[in-house]
Amino acid sequence: MTRVRLDLFLSLDGRTAEPGTTPDNPMGDDWGRLTAAYAATRTFRERVFGDTSGAGTTGLDEAYAAAFPEGVGAEIMGAAMFGLHAYPDDPSWKGWWGDRPPFGTPVYVLTGTAPRPSIPMDGGTTFHFRSGALRDVLAEATEAAAGRDVRVGGGVGVARAFLREGLVDQLHLMVAPVVLGRGPRLWDDLPALDRTHDVRSEVAESGTLHVTFTRKEATA
Amino acid sequence: MTRVRLDLFLSLDGRTAEPGTTPDNPMGDDWGRLTAAYAATRTFRERVFGDTSGAGTTGLDEAYAAAFPEGVGAEIMGAAMFGLHAYPDDPSWKGWWGDRPPFGTPVYVLTGTAPRPSIPMDGGTTFHFRSGALRDVLAEATEAAAGRDVRVGGGVGVARAFLREGLVDQLHLMVAPVVLGRGPRLWDDLPALDRTHDVRSEVAESGTLHVTFTRKEATA
Repeated sequence: MTRVRLDLFLSLDGRTAEPGTTPDNPMGDDWGRLTAAYAATRTFRERVFGDTSGAGTTGLDEAYAAAFPEGVGAEIMGAAMFGLHAYPDDPSWKGWWGDRPPFGTPVYVLTGTAPRPSIPMDGGTTFHFRSGALRDVLAEATEAAAGRDVRVGGGVGVARAFLREGLVDQLHLMVAPVVLGRGPRLWDDLPALDRTHDVRSEVAESGTLHVTFTRKEATA
Repeated sequence: MTRVRLDLFLSLDGRTAEPGTTPDNPMGDDWGRLTAAYAATRTFRERVFGDTSGAGTTGLDEAYAAAFPEGVGAEIMGAAMFGLHAYPDDPSWKGWWGDRPPFGTPVYVLTGTAPRPSIPMDGGTTFHFRSGALRDVLAEATEAAAGRDVRVGGGVGVARAFLREGLVDQLHLMVAPVVLGRGPRLWDDLPALDRTHDVRSEVAESGTLHVTFTRKEATA
């Protein structure tokens, strides 16, 4: 059965950050600090940098990095994650991820602006642009996933919207051992997820806390 | 050398709670949820309930509970922790902890109201009431501790005041696997403690995260 999965980088003080998406990259430092342990994993180095030397960490952070794409059949992301905010008037813009994006699935980009035609890319990724209600987009993504999971890819605003509506079945927080003191707070005004989800906490060798909320099984 | 130590119960969403100190006990449930793992330890059961049967948990939570009073030579707490807010006009009020409080040290109660005479109690505890600046009270407590540590006992407002001024050498967070969605946020507007302190994270059998910030050694 399809689950809705969400993975987020968080600081000890519950702050999130967005990757730098503007020319002056104001949040770049925070994003780098939140994701340092993830970027150090063997999987990330291979997947993103093409480093096949086997370098990189191999502990719990790596286990999560390796499992990240497993079983995902469709993705939903906000317009900023696709770069629509940075390039709003460029109909030829195809996102940040190059000609062969790493998704390999349909990707539903949430946008309030005029619809665009879908963009098929190499490697199985197709970008679709949707401006409907979250639940409608989720229903379409779920159907496209054909039994595999739907990932909510971010950014933070989209993640919080899905959490607020109680739509996330598995939330995986990677809590870096840093205190940001700025950036959006994840938890404000969210439902108490521990009432509906089981909580599992682990500590990686990097000091990163992995906290996973998994929706409790419905009782018959 | 004297260190300033602070132990706090926190939720996954960074909320704190106060023990119920009013007749209708509005925060009692939250406090109970934050402290459940601590209250289940063998040390707590013995220290608070006089349960010498050896019942109670014996893992990481217990290790921290057992270490809690070690090496503490003086304590600082807010007026509410002593109960001054609940009994403002009763000069015979001697706090919540019975005739033999568990501190066994001088305890400096911060109060903005009229000074009171000190209250010596059985078991080595003496309550002093101080309305001066935090740093002055800390200096007095440090001298009284005679080389042992000073504990900042709470509540949350006092804890945050010490953190805001950078006075805490060791902050130990016990993060319960719960999401409160209400209560004071610990981290708002605090200095980025990870710049000045090393961070260590551990997970107890109960799912409680123990996150400890220890001030980095000054380099010569």
